[in-house]
Amino acid sequence: MPKTKYFVTGGAGFIGSNLVDRLLFLGNEVTVYDNFSTGFPENLRDAGKYSGFRLIDGDLLNPDILSQAMSECNFVFHLGANADVRFGTEHPAKDIHQNTIATFNVLEAMRQNSITDIAFSSTGSIYGDAKVIPTPEDSPFPIQTSLYGASKLAGESLIEAYCEGFGFRSWIFRFVSILGERYSHGHVLDFYKQLCSHPGHLEVLGDGHQKKSYLHVQDCIDAILIAIEKSYEKVNLFNLGTCEYCEVNDSINWICKHLGLSPDIRYSGGERGWVGDSPFIFLDCTKMRSLGWTPRYSINEGIIKTLEFLEENQWLQERNK
Amino acid sequence: MPKTKYFVTGGAGFIGSNLVDRLLFLGNEVTVYDNFSTGFPENLRDAGKYSGFRLIDGDLLNPDILSQAMSECNFVFHLGANADVRFGTEHPAKDIHQNTIATFNVLEAMRQNSITDIAFSSTGSIYGDAKVIPTPEDSPFPIQTSLYGASKLAGESLIEAYCEGFGFRSWIFRFVSILGERYSHGHVLDFYKQLCSHPGHLEVLGDGHQKKSYLHVQDCIDAILIAIEKSYEKVNLFNLGTCEYCEVNDSINWICKHLGLSPDIRYSGGERGWVGDSPFIFLDCTKMRSLGWTPRYSINEGIIKTLEFLEENQWLQERNK
Repeated sequence: MPKTKYFVTGGAGFIGSNLVDRLLFLGNEVTVYDNFSTGFPENLRDAGKYSGFRLIDGDLLNPDILSQAMSECNFVFHLGANADVRFGTEHPAKDIHQNTIATFNVLEAMRQNSITDIAFSSTGSIYGDAKVIPTPEDSPFPIQTSLYGASKLAGESLIEAYCEGFGFRSWIFRFVSILGERYSHGHVLDFYKQLCSHPGHLEVLGDGHQKKSYLHVQDCIDAILIAIEKSYEKVNLFNLGTCEYCEVNDSINWICKHLGLSPDIRYSGGERGWVGDSPFIFLDCTKMRSLGWTPRYSINEGIIKTLEFLEENQWLQERNK
Repeated sequence: MPKTKYFVTGGAGFIGSNLVDRLLFLGNEVTVYDNFSTGFPENLRDAGKYSGFRLIDGDLLNPDILSQAMSECNFVFHLGANADVRFGTEHPAKDIHQNTIATFNVLEAMRQNSITDIAFSSTGSIYGDAKVIPTPEDSPFPIQTSLYGASKLAGESLIEAYCEGFGFRSWIFRFVSILGERYSHGHVLDFYKQLCSHPGHLEVLGDGHQKKSYLHVQDCIDAILIAIEKSYEKVNLFNLGTCEYCEVNDSINWICKHLGLSPDIRYSGGERGWVGDSPFIFLDCTKMRSLGWTPRYSINEGIIKTLEFLEENQWLQERNK
């Protein structure tokens, strides 16, 4: 069996770079493809120490460079994406280009290079306002509520069609929000930035009762690698999350306690934080757990670890404005 | 209430032109937008007699012309598509461009023109190999098996996200195969062409036992207009089909009987006609029927009417090679 040579799109990003580090630590060769639009060179400092590491600064919307970059690889992790669900209505084309067309370009580059194995980071947002909670992978056909979710479902669908049409195999992961080292966007950063700038008050989108689920990035990577090792269907779909959820208010309490602050909290109101926000995200991860995976970190622990990372990496606040 | 001015993409196509005729007959103003890649000017001969008819020869992949063409309209029927499910693997980009990106362009053009109502022709192919048959609209989240289905689901998903994000309203129709006047691709034409050229034998893809459902185009248009009149959700999803299905072999028998032929039948074999073909398509149309709609034509009648149209329009065989 030929040695696996991994190609990781978005490998300089939050989840991507943690995956890259793990793959390199396990002795693999890894090519990172990233345009640094939201990824950071800092995230690849550890990776750069390995001889099996190769970095290509390229855009997923440039099919020629992409196809050429992939030429010596035989397994693709496609994590490159516009990963922010909140701002879809401000620039709809961004989700379409970076999540749907980019995925199509990855699939075509794979076909040109006779690569057939792909793992894809999708999202629990594709369940929209789920009718069944906790939501299993085969829940009732959902209606999309965000451009992010729609563009990711389009990506999933294309991958599935390539599996049927071109003999590809895929592992598709529908993530909850991910926490931990190199976290670079989301509510923990938003709240932390606010509390650094004005410790006496905190602006919160929605009514604070939105129920969300989170997963630590190392638990996420454990799950991805176990799923790829242990599942053999043409299309392998997995929800990834902890088996708990919390309210935004719980998260606020944990963050404030860790920082030793008691801010005045101002809610924008409404059950949704923004247009297309889902007031309750909680995924049924029975399928992933049946492979022997269990998350090590609770949501509370994940949030504290994220805060510790942010406290040690103040540069992120500047870079992420 | 301002008068409804309809914009019909793909209005020179099979279903589109039949819809256009109906809308004009009912006294409406209709702008057809078509690039005649698969539509025919002949399909608009009747439409051209109405003063409310306007034709724009334009491509859905040209956003500027599209947006300008739409400027005086207030309701969009988006029927323009690559409507052939069979040849996706021969040119994957075609489905992505003509079904997904084209739909995005339509939505953006609507936004630029402050139009918020859209009806969309989707497909039963998005259910892939359905786990529940007859398949309802909220069946278990399916896995895509064709590029056509994937690209249409992407279109649906974008429309739904625009409904949530931009206050659009949509009517999304998941069709079975449509039959009747101006039919221009599909198995009835394939078989008819073969039997014209060699009446003594017929080549059939698959084993002849594929189970499919069909609907006559006038029944289809009745359903579309009733659904738009009587359903008021943000996103209104409807399966459209008859409440029966037939085997490919039934269809062959009806066609041969009508033509007075007894050909030798040669099956390519296998339960699927082609890669990504679904061996059993049968949609649960209870939701549409609950609005008072009933199809007038059986599948058998639809096939005979299609044959009669093909017999009277031999030019189609030449034009459609």
